[in-house]
Amino acid sequence: MPQGKPPQVPDDGLTTRQRRRSNVLAVHTGTGKGKSTAAFGMALRAWHVGWPIAVFQFVKSPKWRVGEEAAFQALGCSGVGGSVTWHKMGEGWSWIKKPAGEDHAANAAEGWAQVKRDLLAERYAFYVLDEFTYPIHWGWIDVHDVVDTLKSRGGTQHVVITGRYAAPELIAAADLVTEMGKVKHPMDEGRKGQAGIEW
Amino acid sequence: MPQGKPPQVPDDGLTTRQRRRSNVLAVHTGTGKGKSTAAFGMALRAWHVGWPIAVFQFVKSPKWRVGEEAAFQALGCSGVGGSVTWHKMGEGWSWIKKPAGEDHAANAAEGWAQVKRDLLAERYAFYVLDEFTYPIHWGWIDVHDVVDTLKSRGGTQHVVITGRYAAPELIAAADLVTEMGKVKHPMDEGRKGQAGIEW
Repeated sequence: MPQGKPPQVPDDGLTTRQRRRSNVLAVHTGTGKGKSTAAFGMALRAWHVGWPIAVFQFVKSPKWRVGEEAAFQALGCSGVGGSVTWHKMGEGWSWIKKPAGEDHAANAAEGWAQVKRDLLAERYAFYVLDEFTYPIHWGWIDVHDVVDTLKSRGGTQHVVITGRYAAPELIAAADLVTEMGKVKHPMDEGRKGQAGIEW
Repeated sequence: MPQGKPPQVPDDGLTTRQRRRSNVLAVHTGTGKGKSTAAFGMALRAWHVGWPIAVFQFVKSPKWRVGEEAAFQALGCSGVGGSVTWHKMGEGWSWIKKPAGEDHAANAAEGWAQVKRDLLAERYAFYVLDEFTYPIHWGWIDVHDVVDTLKSRGGTQHVVITGRYAAPELIAAADLVTEMGKVKHPMDEGRKGQAGIEW
C-alpha cells in the first residue's frame, strides 16, 4: 500500500522520506507455500530499482530454486536492473528435519559468517536469506547474534528471511512478518511435485 | 517438496507421471503480504521450464508491479525461457474498497472474457490472474462461471489467482491454497511504502 496513510505517524523525528529509506527486515514464515517464492518476487522489485542483490540459500536439495536462480542469472546479465549474486551454503539437507552430521552446522555457520561480512561491508542492498530459520532453529546459529547483527547493520540494506519456525526474537526484530498458512496442498491429494510449479 | 512422499496415493488410475502433469489451480489469499509476489515468484519457475506465461493484472494503480513487469519483460526478451505476455485490465482501482463506476466492472468482465478465450485456445501454460478475487468479490464476475471455466480447461494450463476474500467456491476448486496472514507490517509503525520493497 505505497500510497496509503499509515494509522499513526511515529514520533521519531524522521521525515517520511527518511522513513521510506529505512532498512526493512522481512520474515516469511509458516507451514504454507510461498515463503521463499515471495522473497524472490520481492527481489524482482529490488532488481528493477537497480539494487545489488544477494541470495544466500541455506538449502536442502540441488533441485530447488533452479528456476529462480536461472531467472536471476538472466536478469543479472540483462544489462538493466541490479546485479545478482547467488550463494549456496550447503547441499542435500533435509527440509524440515534436522540433518545429522556436523558439516551441515559448519556450512550454515560459514554462510552466516559470509552474510555478516557482506552486511558490514554494505556490499548489497537486498539480501534473501533463504531458509535461514532452520539453522537458527536447530541451534547452529545464535539468534541473538543474528538479531544484533541485523539491528546494527548500516546503510540501506534490506533483508528477507524465509523458513518455518521463525524464532520469536527474529519476529520481534522484524519490520514485516507474513505467516504463510497452508489451506490446501496438492500433496494432500496424493500428487507429487511438478516441474514448473514446485521447482 | 518435489521429492517428498505424499501421505496417500489416490486411486484415480493415473501414474505419478500423469499426476505430475495435471493442471494446478493455486489461490493466494489472506490479508498479509506476498500473495501476488509469490505468484510472480512461481512464474519465474514457469519461465525457466520454457512455458508461455500470461499475466492478467486486475489492478488498482499504475505504480504497482512495475518491478515485476520490467523483470518479466527482460526475461521474455532474454532468448532463453518462456515468453511473457502482460495484460492490464484496468487502472486506478481502489485496492480493498469497491470502486465506484460501471467502467471498472466492464473492464474486469472484459479481462475475464479474454482469459476465457485464451484458456479455450490453450494459448499459455501458466496464468497469473493478479487480484482477480476482487472483481469476483464485488459481484462483477460470476464465481460459478470462473470455477466451471477453470475445471473444464484443457491441456496443461496452470492458473494462479491472488487477492483477498477468495470465494469459498474458488477455494474448493483449487489444488493449492495458501493464506498469507499479516503478523506485522511496517505501516503499523507509521512507515510508508518504499521503492524496491513495495513496488
